[in-house]
Amino acid sequence: MSHRTESYLVGLVGDGVMPSLTPPMHEREGDVQGLRYLYRPIDLLELGLPGESVGQVLQSARTLGFNGLNITHPCKQLVLQYLDEVTPDAQRLGAVNTVVIRDGRFIGHNTDFSGFASALASGLPGARLDRVLQLGAGGAGSAVAYALLTAGVRSLELVDMDLERAAARAEELSRFFPGATVTARTPAELPGLMPLVDGLVHCTPVGMAAHPGTPLDLDLLEPRHWVADIVYRPIETELVRGARAKGCEVLDGGRMAVGQAADAFRIFTGLRADPDRMRSHFLELVAAEEVAA
Amino acid sequence: MSHRTESYLVGLVGDGVMPSLTPPMHEREGDVQGLRYLYRPIDLLELGLPGESVGQVLQSARTLGFNGLNITHPCKQLVLQYLDEVTPDAQRLGAVNTVVIRDGRFIGHNTDFSGFASALASGLPGARLDRVLQLGAGGAGSAVAYALLTAGVRSLELVDMDLERAAARAEELSRFFPGATVTARTPAELPGLMPLVDGLVHCTPVGMAAHPGTPLDLDLLEPRHWVADIVYRPIETELVRGARAKGCEVLDGGRMAVGQAADAFRIFTGLRADPDRMRSHFLELVAAEEVAA
Repeated sequence: MSHRTESYLVGLVGDGVMPSLTPPMHEREGDVQGLRYLYRPIDLLELGLPGESVGQVLQSARTLGFNGLNITHPCKQLVLQYLDEVTPDAQRLGAVNTVVIRDGRFIGHNTDFSGFASALASGLPGARLDRVLQLGAGGAGSAVAYALLTAGVRSLELVDMDLERAAARAEELSRFFPGATVTARTPAELPGLMPLVDGLVHCTPVGMAAHPGTPLDLDLLEPRHWVADIVYRPIETELVRGARAKGCEVLDGGRMAVGQAADAFRIFTGLRADPDRMRSHFLELVAAEEVAA
Repeated sequence: MSHRTESYLVGLVGDGVMPSLTPPMHEREGDVQGLRYLYRPIDLLELGLPGESVGQVLQSARTLGFNGLNITHPCKQLVLQYLDEVTPDAQRLGAVNTVVIRDGRFIGHNTDFSGFASALASGLPGARLDRVLQLGAGGAGSAVAYALLTAGVRSLELVDMDLERAAARAEELSRFFPGATVTARTPAELPGLMPLVDGLVHCTPVGMAAHPGTPLDLDLLEPRHWVADIVYRPIETELVRGARAKGCEVLDGGRMAVGQAADAFRIFTGLRADPDRMRSHFLELVAAEEVAA
């Protein structure tokens, strides 16, 4: 019966997901493609549930006819134990942000990494990727670093306030990409490193409304650097604005958000999402928020 | 955020609900009203779950952001223990077919009864209701009898193969409607009773594709009788066809199906559903099924 096979029910599980723009992005893309598409945020904080309850949420979603779930903090690692199958990339990353439910089975994907990879390819085509510096080695940073190495970066400088975390991540990534060099660094090394790299990727919360400022001294930027930010609230972070003023090529955080949503849409529906259309809708949503704020 | 408040997620819980026409009826009405409306069948038989699991399904639905659930066999009584509030009519009927989830609370309604009442009013306006004979005193029959007595029937002849069941029901109904007379009868009494009643309501499975035939000897019908059937697959049951051929005024089973769906739609959304529009869509769906069968 056509009314059933063409309808998609999806959710986003995690803490503080109510304001996420992912649900309206998916719904709008579904609308344009003529699908019945409904995307519910499932906020564990509001529900008073711990991250561990993601397993129960998955089972409930299967019972109630969900096609899949996006997974976010604090469940991206916790969810692994409940899955029937995990893509090799997600397995290596040790993190899943997209679970599709097919024939009663849970299949885990990671579109944080693939979303950044496609954002980089479409937003900064032809960018030099020999040597790249990344600020932030947390959860999102791991996916981005993995994407950078997949995209061909040969030498990755991984900078984090927590040197142990950066070192652990660097060692892990070196194992998966034996042809590349991944080096853990501290912020103190930035002045020496920036002259040596082609581009900079920023993966910390600095620049978000709650954490204003720039994650590094903008004087360290040169026009030949490309700069990618993954913060997208606001879309024009101080880093993005400063880099653009210096003449750098810039990738804003919206590209990754759209990239991961477009990939998840394809995984849930089997249908390609149009990333340009999704991006223009995303920019509308962000602009509406910024006006309201 | 408007995209969220205008979207409705609803389910139907019970055994063998996959072919139900209720989901597409709701979804189409939601579409016409410009809502994002998604209605999932949740088939306990297919899931291998007992009727008792309706409590767990309710909790899962609340967690995952459902606005409500329709409830059918075998859960209409079982669900009562899990509800925070039940309308007085549903409480008297001891059966709930509609649960709305509001502020985390489960509120139970019965639209089987209200749906038949509005079907009767709109489909057989002006029908004499002094004395009515009803065939079948099961679950659906209880709701219909309650609707008939609410609508003003003063003497109800309740016929069932299982006289004990009919007697228990009659006693119960007499308590709720002290001004009316409800009498338990056996099918053997039909020839004597039919000349005395204004109309006949049929509430057994006879006439469904799996149970062909008529529930009584059509020779007992007179043109002055009105005849209501609650079977709607096929919409033109042998009883409906035979009664129409006799010149009786007829209410087909689709009216009740549409009435209960329209009432549930209003309970879930707070918006009035257009019963004529829902009926014409319902007839389309039934016709498509009958062509396919």
